[in-house]
Amino acid sequence: MASTFTVLVSLLFLLSIPSILSHPLDPLTPLEIKQVTKIIKGSRAVSLANLTFQYVGLDEPSKSTILSWLSNPTKEPLPRQAFVIARAYEKSYEFVVSLSNGSIISQHIYNGTGFPLLNLEEQSAANDLAFKYPPFIKSIKKRGLDIKDVVPSVFTVGWYGEKSMSGRVVKVLFFYKGGTPNVWVRPIEGIAVLVDLDKMVIVKYSDSEVVSIPKAEGTEYRGSKMRPPFAAETKPITVVQPHGPSFKINGHTISWADWNLHLAFDVRAGLVISLATIFDSIEHKHRQVLYKGHVSELFVPYMDPTEEWYYRTFLDAGEFGLGLSAVSLQQHTDCPANAIFMDGYYANQDGEPVKLSNAFCVFERYAGDIAWRHTESAISGEVITEVRPGVSLVVRTVSTIGNYDYIMDWEFKKSGSIKFGVGLSGILEAKASTYTHKKQVKEDIYGTLVTENTIAINHDHYITCYLDLDIDGEKNSFVKGKMKTMRTDGSTPRKSYWTMTRELVKTELDARIWTDKPTELLIVNPNKFTKMGNQVGYRLVPGPAAIPLLLEDDYPQIRGAFSNYNVWVTLYNKSERWAGGLYADRSHGDDTLFTWTNRNRDIDDKDIVLWHTIGFHHSPSQDEFPVMPTLNGGFELRPSNFFESNPILNLRPPKPVDLPTCNATTP
Amino acid sequence: MASTFTVLVSLLFLLSIPSILSHPLDPLTPLEIKQVTKIIKGSRAVSLANLTFQYVGLDEPSKSTILSWLSNPTKEPLPRQAFVIARAYEKSYEFVVSLSNGSIISQHIYNGTGFPLLNLEEQSAANDLAFKYPPFIKSIKKRGLDIKDVVPSVFTVGWYGEKSMSGRVVKVLFFYKGGTPNVWVRPIEGIAVLVDLDKMVIVKYSDSEVVSIPKAEGTEYRGSKMRPPFAAETKPITVVQPHGPSFKINGHTISWADWNLHLAFDVRAGLVISLATIFDSIEHKHRQVLYKGHVSELFVPYMDPTEEWYYRTFLDAGEFGLGLSAVSLQQHTDCPANAIFMDGYYANQDGEPVKLSNAFCVFERYAGDIAWRHTESAISGEVITEVRPGVSLVVRTVSTIGNYDYIMDWEFKKSGSIKFGVGLSGILEAKASTYTHKKQVKEDIYGTLVTENTIAINHDHYITCYLDLDIDGEKNSFVKGKMKTMRTDGSTPRKSYWTMTRELVKTELDARIWTDKPTELLIVNPNKFTKMGNQVGYRLVPGPAAIPLLLEDDYPQIRGAFSNYNVWVTLYNKSERWAGGLYADRSHGDDTLFTWTNRNRDIDDKDIVLWHTIGFHHSPSQDEFPVMPTLNGGFELRPSNFFESNPILNLRPPKPVDLPTCNATTP
Repeated sequence: MASTFTVLVSLLFLLSIPSILSHPLDPLTPLEIKQVTKIIKGSRAVSLANLTFQYVGLDEPSKSTILSWLSNPTKEPLPRQAFVIARAYEKSYEFVVSLSNGSIISQHIYNGTGFPLLNLEEQSAANDLAFKYPPFIKSIKKRGLDIKDVVPSVFTVGWYGEKSMSGRVVKVLFFYKGGTPNVWVRPIEGIAVLVDLDKMVIVKYSDSEVVSIPKAEGTEYRGSKMRPPFAAETKPITVVQPHGPSFKINGHTISWADWNLHLAFDVRAGLVISLATIFDSIEHKHRQVLYKGHVSELFVPYMDPTEEWYYRTFLDAGEFGLGLSAVSLQQHTDCPANAIFMDGYYANQDGEPVKLSNAFCVFERYAGDIAWRHTESAISGEVITEVRPGVSLVVRTVSTIGNYDYIMDWEFKKSGSIKFGVGLSGILEAKASTYTHKKQVKEDIYGTLVTENTIAINHDHYITCYLDLDIDGEKNSFVKGKMKTMRTDGSTPRKSYWTMTRELVKTELDARIWTDKPTELLIVNPNKFTKMGNQVGYRLVPGPAAIPLLLEDDYPQIRGAFSNYNVWVTLYNKSERWAGGLYADRSHGDDTLFTWTNRNRDIDDKDIVLWHTIGFHHSPSQDEFPVMPTLNGGFELRPSNFFESNPILNLRPPKPVDLPTCNATTP
Repeated sequence: MASTFTVLVSLLFLLSIPSILSHPLDPLTPLEIKQVTKIIKGSRAVSLANLTFQYVGLDEPSKSTILSWLSNPTKEPLPRQAFVIARAYEKSYEFVVSLSNGSIISQHIYNGTGFPLLNLEEQSAANDLAFKYPPFIKSIKKRGLDIKDVVPSVFTVGWYGEKSMSGRVVKVLFFYKGGTPNVWVRPIEGIAVLVDLDKMVIVKYSDSEVVSIPKAEGTEYRGSKMRPPFAAETKPITVVQPHGPSFKINGHTISWADWNLHLAFDVRAGLVISLATIFDSIEHKHRQVLYKGHVSELFVPYMDPTEEWYYRTFLDAGEFGLGLSAVSLQQHTDCPANAIFMDGYYANQDGEPVKLSNAFCVFERYAGDIAWRHTESAISGEVITEVRPGVSLVVRTVSTIGNYDYIMDWEFKKSGSIKFGVGLSGILEAKASTYTHKKQVKEDIYGTLVTENTIAINHDHYITCYLDLDIDGEKNSFVKGKMKTMRTDGSTPRKSYWTMTRELVKTELDARIWTDKPTELLIVNPNKFTKMGNQVGYRLVPGPAAIPLLLEDDYPQIRGAFSNYNVWVTLYNKSERWAGGLYADRSHGDDTLFTWTNRNRDIDDKDIVLWHTIGFHHSPSQDEFPVMPTLNGGFELRPSNFFESNPILNLRPPKPVDLPTCNATTP
């Protein structure tokens, strides 16, 4: 105990300096992560030997605490707390740890269904097991493969109605290098190892069939290995800001143009946007828009129901972590030359901080777009042309979950719009097959024959965003604007028109919506109106919708029931952030957007959260093999009577950019 | 006759030099326009005095002629022909003129419903009439307005079931400057002048009511007139290509990366993309993708059924011409610093060529996007990251039709994708009102009170594109991929999945589609397959859909029936290019996509055309006043088993951009 006490004291001393500068929503620092670990490991609650960390993140103060702190940011920093999920003795332990007084505030064992995030070390350990397992070595030999070229990977297995809690198991599947790094298109079919992650033992091994591994030829994607003919090259192009970027980063807070926002890294959500406010020059203040926004879940069910594939119905955020899967971004390729990078930190299995360099990038985007324009030629004797180029602020992160790469952008426009965009790239998940030509195929192959012996399997992507809009305050309402056909009274030759009827949506069940009908969806502040009397709000310009095609009572759809609609609104509840549940791995679907909203809470004039899903049904094509050209989708949150008038009307026309010109006389 | 002959000979001499370099799809040159006019005016057919030109454009050779010419481009240029619509004696005359032999090939009077494009001179003349019309002068005086500040504008009036052909009439409406150039938000309500364009006389005058003109304050948008506080400024940003652009322009043909395409200006369609082909390094040839693509019609019905507004249901392309309304683009604002500009030419009322400078711009777009990427961390001991930045070619044009500005982009990606994007900006069409606050409003005001006394009226935008895809040849088919829920046989715990069933759509009626259901829409070459046996094609990733809300038998919807579905496929017919009819002004809806497809022609293994509509229901908001921040929409044509594999897999990684660095020693 004495040594623990000493460590705590010294840690608190160390923390006292940087924490003065910290923002209450800043992610845990490496020192804070270390401190959390020490506090938990130092307690008598759990044995040190068996404890593994699955999630370590900031336990945020309440919204009211944060907002009151922000209104007077000069006073001392708020107490810092962490939320931790750890595994020990085959149980999930939840801790709330106070960093300010170095103690565990609460601790309990989670007895519900599902398991926490997988950490990287246990995935790695599970991957290694087979290589010391004689039947596996025999299977590899039987196939005539070189075991040095075998690449394992952990696949979560979902839940298929098993009554008893069947353990924290995953399947390890195998892929083959042999001349290409593109292992995902070279599966070793037939072999599956079921691993219990808590016991870290193989609980089941199967070698059902031998299918030849698809050829390596044509699967390489590294530029250094490419041989002519190359795709046509174009001349260099880059973005230049001779006077540097316009945004200011202070810790995790960014200010740019009239925007102000906070960025944080979370091992599960990846990038978290908080406290996005915009300065209104009429009201002379920063106005609240988005209290918090992040990807909540990413549901990717594959559409092959056979023994080797049926369980592949991933909840990528909750199982693998969008932060844990975030990659180090590269300047000039992942992000443009004018980007600034930020790091992220997460706790590994032992609770040690791990740095993820360049986890986000921040840049100003100018793509030649136009923010607004008009040419006036009705006025005789003059032609007026006024154009403002569209420059925006982008915060980007990329998560690579095994084969797939998700490029996620939050874009802030000077006009007040917030856009979220997702780009899908990476490698299609493929199944080895004996087919070498489509004419041989007489059955459903559940996908597309993309090259010889390779079927890219049909699947969906549902990217569900958590959007805690607080339009000018926490108390908001959800309004559905319906465009309705009206018949005229015959006083003019026109027979019809449409009118907008705005309907206040009072409860959660009524706020379950598909955006396939002409509808305007607004989050408004019911207590605030423009000078003209219009309700102040933001509207959702929805992204691509994909209506789920799984049966509603099929297990993956029960777990992924947050995709049953593409718009939901919930009453704010600090614990309801993960659309597929806090314990998503092997979840039973009892903690989802669907179950929460079945309570049908009142959402009128309350602190509410908007949820929106971008969906893709993906039937692969050869053009997407062996790496997929990016497919884009996104949505926009657009001011709707939020401003008294266009807030960038008085944006000054840009001056010519004074690029450095060079004097030819060199010594 | 002798003088005409001399003129013709000299014109032919002049034309003989440039035409050698011309492409058969090049728009008419100024000399050719002059020649066409001379030929028509020189003929005995129509009196010179009364003839006005409404449309003068290229009459293209047949597709087969062009394709065979292209296969051997060294031979002499193809004969050039023009198609002309002129008005004389209150009739529409159609001429086909041969430029090669200086004669009229065909000539006839059009006896159907509807009228051709309005030309600028007749709009100007119609605008002027009221200012010499005493009742109008009296109306202006009665309102206490200064007639020097009154700005007239021509509004087309549609068709509302009038049995007899009621003449080529338009309404002239009036707006008020008085301290702002933003006249569209300052309508002088109550006054309407009905003008017969052929007779160029006022046929009806009405002064129904006096409504105060909304104030000028807050409507100014010129940067030079703006006063602080300004919107937050950001530091300069620009796109730089130190070695210049990568595209080559040869006449109207552009080559960039593996793309090759032809651009033309048409007074009605604006920008016309033709012969877009992409070089396939596997097949070692340029492959046909898009034979022709352009905006075909732009339907904008307003939703105010009252006497002053009911008729405002514009067919912007067919009435006002997207080319005639195209604006001169400005470098650094409309188009980025690296853009190259191209001019357009059209014939004025007298058949004289008019130059429109900078009608298009062409630029390479680099917005920090990612063409494809993957990070591989499954392979132990190494992390592979390969990323290719996304650089594309954009061709942009902007048409301003009165108040609204449409920014139209055709974007070509190295991956083979073609994207069309439209940005809506400009000024909302507004109605003056006595209301100064929403609480006063007890009736349907058909829009939003955007400032005191100003209602921005609800409306729709339907942008319909003509997409003559010729995937590896003219004979194509339309395939609808339906994703269908399947129940499993119970051999695994999975209950369901979806499967793709591709259905050949054999006739035009079956090809009328709304994209609100999970559907994959493909144009394929039914006679060409990949090595794997997949049908070679392109798929449509649709744009935003807006299901029309007008009654189907309401006159505007009959005329705009091409918006009844957002996807159509027709049998190619040279004369079917304008979704709302060749004679769109006051059309009766008897020459639309809807009527053509009622013939239900066979579209399987034929030369077919895809039509796609981007739709917006627009309920305005104050944030869009007095000039609207751009609202974007678009669609993508994406290769679908067109390539054997990702065509940009072997795109070399970009080299660092060597920006000029300057030596500090200046003399």
